[in-house]
Amino acid sequence: MDHAAPSAVDDAAALIIGNEILSGKIADANLVVLARTLRGLGIALRRAVTVSDELPIIRDEVRRLAAAHDVVFTSGGVGPTHDDVTVEAVAAAFDVPLESCAQLEHLIRGFYGDKVTDSHLRVARVPRGGRLVSGPDSPWPALVMNNVWMLPGIPQLFAMKMASVRANLRGSSSFVLARVYTTTEEGALKPLLDAVVAAHPNVEVGSYPQWRNPRYRTLVTFDGPSRASVEAAQQSFVRQLEPGSHVSGE
Amino acid sequence: MDHAAPSAVDDAAALIIGNEILSGKIADANLVVLARTLRGLGIALRRAVTVSDELPIIRDEVRRLAAAHDVVFTSGGVGPTHDDVTVEAVAAAFDVPLESCAQLEHLIRGFYGDKVTDSHLRVARVPRGGRLVSGPDSPWPALVMNNVWMLPGIPQLFAMKMASVRANLRGSSSFVLARVYTTTEEGALKPLLDAVVAAHPNVEVGSYPQWRNPRYRTLVTFDGPSRASVEAAQQSFVRQLEPGSHVSGE
Repeated sequence: MDHAAPSAVDDAAALIIGNEILSGKIADANLVVLARTLRGLGIALRRAVTVSDELPIIRDEVRRLAAAHDVVFTSGGVGPTHDDVTVEAVAAAFDVPLESCAQLEHLIRGFYGDKVTDSHLRVARVPRGGRLVSGPDSPWPALVMNNVWMLPGIPQLFAMKMASVRANLRGSSSFVLARVYTTTEEGALKPLLDAVVAAHPNVEVGSYPQWRNPRYRTLVTFDGPSRASVEAAQQSFVRQLEPGSHVSGE
Repeated sequence: MDHAAPSAVDDAAALIIGNEILSGKIADANLVVLARTLRGLGIALRRAVTVSDELPIIRDEVRRLAAAHDVVFTSGGVGPTHDDVTVEAVAAAFDVPLESCAQLEHLIRGFYGDKVTDSHLRVARVPRGGRLVSGPDSPWPALVMNNVWMLPGIPQLFAMKMASVRANLRGSSSFVLARVYTTTEEGALKPLLDAVVAAHPNVEVGSYPQWRNPRYRTLVTFDGPSRASVEAAQQSFVRQLEPGSHVSGE
């Protein structure tokens, strides 16, 4: 896959792994980064699931998500310690054993030199049939098994891996987005929103009320497959707004 | 439930609802707030799922989560517009119709006065058998159907509802947490971590490598049911750290 043309995929799911998220010790920072990357590629992210560091739970969820979506991204649990069970769980999900990967072992030995330990080398174990995927900015390859990308949970490393995702996948959709900010309150907008939704069935209209925002009360978004369809919906909405209540749009 | 003693629950799940999260338009801010509230109450948050604003998807997920967990919290999709389908989906999950709630209608008419519209009153529809739950700081009650709490997606309103959660639920667990910061790198810590994990089976040990943090390289956490068990694990770990590598603990 490393040097092949990007694979075309329609939809994706994310699996966020870590007790530290579910216990509230830290806030996940990776989902929004993945969501934006996929959106830019034209890949629809359909579902995200957050689970604890328990092998059977991760295995079952990987199975479910990998069967239902074109591509799955996991975040977390790929380090060398006892609570890092993602790679083993993905192997179990596909009923394959773990085996040592010479390329990863070489990278790990190069990185740690004399200080390399068995713990470090534990990270060289990959599911049989897994492959390493490189990207332009990433010194370290991402591990992919079938349609499951195993990404690191550390936010800086997760973000770096987005270059590999961009280099290796492309979506089948084109997403165009437009926004309108208005001082009209959401409840009062509903008849107009309903009319726009009915008249523009291929445009997804979102309405987001703001809480004590001095500048506007509702953000309305228009998502669709083409600039023309999105602008048509946006303009029909803006034309029917009460005069003076249209703050701005883009 | 309003004036009853808090209900005791063991475990919980969260369902984050909104196309805007999956498309990366905004980052969810509510999960970590809920996770911390539940942790403080002694309720284990076991799973969080993020889905789009599609009624059948929400309905199926509510059914699954409500059957598997003591309590479920949804975030988002409770406003008056076409993309707010959470309440209807929860009613469908429990096979009950929506009906107008006199208490909510009264609140809505009081809030909007002369300007009330049918759109506003749409928010007064609740699943048959649903109940309103109040909290000390919350002017507006939370809607609860069986074991499903339907909370607003707007972060400020979601956070306000945590007072109602605290007033009405209590957990069956006690969670004690201790942290140790060390300059030792995670791979080198593994044998020591494994020994502590083996010697303290009732304490959950987490290990979180830091990326280019000048102060420490690994955060190690100890979670357990009592102060004594957590401190025993923490102290056994600290005693065996290499001299000088223990930055701080708490």
